[in-house]
Amino acid sequence: MHAFRVTTERRTQFVDITSRVQGAVESLGLREGVVHVFVPHTTAGVTINEGADPGVVADLDAALERMVPWAGPWRHGEGNSAAHVKASLMGASLCVPVEGGRLRLGVWQAIYLCEFDGPRTREVWVSKA
Amino acid sequence: MHAFRVTTERRTQFVDITSRVQGAVESLGLREGVVHVFVPHTTAGVTINEGADPGVVADLDAALERMVPWAGPWRHGEGNSAAHVKASLMGASLCVPVEGGRLRLGVWQAIYLCEFDGPRTREVWVSKA
Amino acid sequence: MHAFRVTTERRTQFVDITSRVQGAVESLGLREGVVHVFVPHTTAGVTINEGADPGVVADLDAALERMVPWAGPWRHGEGNSAAHVKASLMGASLCVPVEGGRLRLGVWQAIYLCEFDGPRTREVWVSKA
Repeated sequence: MHAFRVTTERRTQFVDITSRVQGAVESLGLREGVVHVFVPHTTAGVTINEGADPGVVADLDAALERMVPWAGPWRHGEGNSAAHVKASLMGASLCVPVEGGRLRLGVWQAIYLCEFDGPRTREVWVSKA
Repeated sequence: MHAFRVTTERRTQFVDITSRVQGAVESLGLREGVVHVFVPHTTAGVTINEGADPGVVADLDAALERMVPWAGPWRHGEGNSAAHVKASLMGASLCVPVEGGRLRLGVWQAIYLCEFDGPRTREVWVSKA
Repeated sequence: MHAFRVTTERRTQFVDITSRVQGAVESLGLREGVVHVFVPHTTAGVTINEGADPGVVADLDAALERMVPWAGPWRHGEGNSAAHVKASLMGASLCVPVEGGRLRLGVWQAIYLCEFDGPRTREVWVSKA
């Protein structure tokens, strides 16, 4: 397993980690197969979406806020339940094919760490599936 | 593949299955790698979220109900379409890293079977990814 | 890796690709293990849900439209941000167990390509996890 850290700067933020995951694939020596990307947190997640126009993840962020407003109502005492809900909507685990030692993504795809309760330092764990 | 059953008691319920999945990892003899957790149902799912405060999954349950009200409107004749929608939002499949024969989860993470149309007896299928 | 194409006819459409994924499992010669299904797009996704009553995915489609209205408001200039949001809600990646050369799905489960910005020709990539 190869782990790396991501430091976020805002409460909600989508950080493009594609090149970091590619680096992990190289550290693992994985040439062909499938790589597993895992976020060991409950108020952050991982997703694949467009990497070209930053407006796309800004719209994703805003849409999730409309679907799951920070204000609640909530039972959980810490007040960050919206972050937990968004984490489950995006998920903590995804896989990507690898060919010739490279992540095989679609032309427009990038891998994002989804911060929902920052700023914090987050971990990403990458392993051969 | 190792399968186990979970009996739920309410229409919607989040059941912590972490120790059952750990038992499956041991039954499979998996020491290092990635384990796949699969729910063979269309009105239940699987997610990772906080295991410490039961208020978190209570809030997740309530937030999903606000996003996808049971009352609809729906076309599907059985009247349980909200459960089908929630199942796709959470997903039927996720992976978790394994190291030294143990699930490698984050400190706060637990694996939940998500019941959306209970009470029922559900199955969980665990296999080496 | 085995790839196939799916042509969609409407803006939003859920296409049952179970038999195509089964064909890919056979092309790969995979007998036992886990297969990874990946959609290399950012306005389409993949999910598992009921295959028997087409009303179920019609309800899923309508529920996603209520949660993420096409009209926005959005920042992304192309006007298809709702499709990007829905793609992340469903996900681009899922795994399914394989036994004896057959997808091992639950009785009611089917695998769907989720089109959110069609009509288009989409790809699905299937590989051994």
